[in-house]
Amino acid sequence: MKRLEFIKSVIGGSLAFSLPTTASAKTDTMAFSEAMQAVARPVDGSMIGFKTDAISKVKVGIIGLGNRGSGLLEMFDWLLKEQFAEIVALSDLRENQVSKALDWLKGKQDSIPKTYFKGENDWKNLTLQDNVDLVLITTPWRWHTPMAIEAMNQGKHVASEVPIAYTLSDCWQLVETAEKTRKHCIMIENCCYNDEELWVLNMVESGVFGELTHAEGAYLHDLRAHLLSQDYYQGQWRLEHHKTRSGNFYTTHGLGPISTYLKIGRGDTFKHLTSMSSQEANLSQTIEAQGLPKIQIKCGDMNTTLIQTHNGKSIMLQFDVHSGSPYSRINKLVGTKAKHDGYPSRLYIDKDKSEELAFWGHRWLEEADYTTYRSKYTHPMITKLKKISQSYKQGHGGMDFVMIYRLIRCLNLGLPLDLNVYDGAMWSAITPLSELSVAQKSQSIEVPDFTNQQWKTKRPLEIMRNL
Amino acid sequence: MKRLEFIKSVIGGSLAFSLPTTASAKTDTMAFSEAMQAVARPVDGSMIGFKTDAISKVKVGIIGLGNRGSGLLEMFDWLLKEQFAEIVALSDLRENQVSKALDWLKGKQDSIPKTYFKGENDWKNLTLQDNVDLVLITTPWRWHTPMAIEAMNQGKHVASEVPIAYTLSDCWQLVETAEKTRKHCIMIENCCYNDEELWVLNMVESGVFGELTHAEGAYLHDLRAHLLSQDYYQGQWRLEHHKTRSGNFYTTHGLGPISTYLKIGRGDTFKHLTSMSSQEANLSQTIEAQGLPKIQIKCGDMNTTLIQTHNGKSIMLQFDVHSGSPYSRINKLVGTKAKHDGYPSRLYIDKDKSEELAFWGHRWLEEADYTTYRSKYTHPMITKLKKISQSYKQGHGGMDFVMIYRLIRCLNLGLPLDLNVYDGAMWSAITPLSELSVAQKSQSIEVPDFTNQQWKTKRPLEIMRNL
Repeated sequence: MKRLEFIKSVIGGSLAFSLPTTASAKTDTMAFSEAMQAVARPVDGSMIGFKTDAISKVKVGIIGLGNRGSGLLEMFDWLLKEQFAEIVALSDLRENQVSKALDWLKGKQDSIPKTYFKGENDWKNLTLQDNVDLVLITTPWRWHTPMAIEAMNQGKHVASEVPIAYTLSDCWQLVETAEKTRKHCIMIENCCYNDEELWVLNMVESGVFGELTHAEGAYLHDLRAHLLSQDYYQGQWRLEHHKTRSGNFYTTHGLGPISTYLKIGRGDTFKHLTSMSSQEANLSQTIEAQGLPKIQIKCGDMNTTLIQTHNGKSIMLQFDVHSGSPYSRINKLVGTKAKHDGYPSRLYIDKDKSEELAFWGHRWLEEADYTTYRSKYTHPMITKLKKISQSYKQGHGGMDFVMIYRLIRCLNLGLPLDLNVYDGAMWSAITPLSELSVAQKSQSIEVPDFTNQQWKTKRPLEIMRNL
Repeated sequence: MKRLEFIKSVIGGSLAFSLPTTASAKTDTMAFSEAMQAVARPVDGSMIGFKTDAISKVKVGIIGLGNRGSGLLEMFDWLLKEQFAEIVALSDLRENQVSKALDWLKGKQDSIPKTYFKGENDWKNLTLQDNVDLVLITTPWRWHTPMAIEAMNQGKHVASEVPIAYTLSDCWQLVETAEKTRKHCIMIENCCYNDEELWVLNMVESGVFGELTHAEGAYLHDLRAHLLSQDYYQGQWRLEHHKTRSGNFYTTHGLGPISTYLKIGRGDTFKHLTSMSSQEANLSQTIEAQGLPKIQIKCGDMNTTLIQTHNGKSIMLQFDVHSGSPYSRINKLVGTKAKHDGYPSRLYIDKDKSEELAFWGHRWLEEADYTTYRSKYTHPMITKLKKISQSYKQGHGGMDFVMIYRLIRCLNLGLPLDLNVYDGAMWSAITPLSELSVAQKSQSIEVPDFTNQQWKTKRPLEIMRNL
């Protein structure tokens, strides 16, 4: 643990909650950045392409049966029927949530899962249960890393909801624990499995975009009602983050798909970033207008983060859950031969550069041409799963089913998972790094290399291609 | 000139062409930044709200009769007819361009302008011509500042095309010369006068957006054909910039309107920025595919710059003229009560915050509601000028006419111009600051205060309101 001790000595404790905010802290930041570069090297890096023996029926324990856990449980319907998975353990703080899950499972599998709902630490007993192969973590953010680490230490594979971590030391601990225990540790980012993102990915891999130079992603979603609800996030846990931190708290819906386009961790990696938050205004005004008790909100309404990759690509990533904007993940991609913009999706194809150059007036593809591309490059996995996934449209338009299907089927067949522990650490680390940059007038910050330079080796992206 | 000498001693000459690029230059950058803060203070700042005696017929000399100068000349048609302006001098390097302008003027005014086309320095004689009130500068970028300074020193008012400068010392020299000579020095940014931007501005000023928190602007325009043409930009002057610099070269089409929305220089100002460029790929590939001689292109395909204002707003500004993207200035604005997105234009209105909060599914306004807002908040100046400006649609959809109309009519009536020398310096300074940040791994850079702290005083934005 020498590395973690070193980092802690530089940053003085938990990064996310003890940021230096004065101008004189500039030197500390640079020291911190250099420290990360100097010592932040995993010993191994060998979880890339990691696979285990085939598990013909994956025995799953779920921790967290709130909004997200209940929703993901339903994605197992078809997998249970086909005997590809079995739910063998359920845990939540609230017995009634566990009971609801048990009810839903009736008739879907022969066995009855063991249950854990006796206090804050009963989930630990789930990780001790012998026959669990995979622990699915769908709890509030602060539990993702400790639960993942405990589960791996108890010999279980782990799949965690996003973000799997929100401090740098948690990111490093996940990497070290996965390498030490030789267990899968996947952050399940559902937007990587959405029709539109997979269609863009398929076009990238088919050469439609030429050389990629720039990408944009976001999480723009009005969460005011959710954040201020008394019961949507149990104990208003999510609002607590907005009271005490400022940065991009939710990087992965945008950055996950972008990382698959740019082959991050597979020939390229994040190099440095800079981040800026606007003032906070909208959530406070909403609290006041709703007649709720006044609270201090630290998180700015709009965070914009710029990330440069080693190969020179630029990424623009945004986060805004205060402003009441219509939903968008942007999903913009710029290549030398094509461009895509999302919300609504539109595509531009550059003509052959050797032809006479147009002087004026490029346009996005007309609907008929767009539809031709959309149809021609539909991802084969989407085509394959269409019939099944259409029954599960409630799972964010089908992508939740595709994600869980991929997770379980890769385990069934002993294949590498679509994403590895480094992907989860890299995408999640952008959160604390953005906080650090925001607190330092958008100072440029180096991104640590969680792969021990193994990103330099080009290798196929496993996502959706090996099954 | 103590200030300029100090800055030069820190940065070692012309900023735009001698950027420090090594990691060890970090210290220099910080020293530079501190130096700017310490010494970069104009003595006066009193060109805010500056006005002169009414000039019943404005006598105009135009330097530069290429693409842009010829186009702007045609915007004078109605003003000449009405005797509000008279073209008294014309200058270009090419006699035939001057002749074309003379031909166009025939029958539109009684007098014949004096002409200056004898070599690189003949324009200086135009600035010496006694009866010239206003020098309109529409030459390649590198001439904007020297011509503006010479004209002011010869007692003329100045209107320059964008960017009026692209080094920090040029920005400062413009400010100092305007303050010393007591002459108007306006950078004419036509997008401030476009229907859509003025409609958004009118909504901002009418309170439709509530409190503003974030804005986005851009210049995304495929200029490959223009840049590589042998004659579109005389001597390929614009391509030269792309060979030797990397950053945002064309800030003002996006930043101008945003600055009117956010009241930059009128209660708020730019505080610091950070900038990132992607790799260069598309222009080089086009050059190769066209069979043109290979050249080194330094300017990245996509530049993204983040600017923080003193009041905590964030601005995202982009520049891409290589990638072949469909045209966009983005024109995004986020407020606590409304949001706007451009290309295509769409509007979101938040409901009263005291009502029950929506849990899911905000949408942009449907067409009928959008049209209602578009009509209700059409800027009064657009309504007033509609009949005339429709005859001048060739001037970028009418906005060039509105811009020239405003310029001449304010001078006719002895009113302050819509924009002052500080606006031009501030918007233009983002270019060299972006270059500096790009060269320093997106280091955060302070923006100098050209107004000598007079931005702190809230005052009405003159644009479109005083006539």
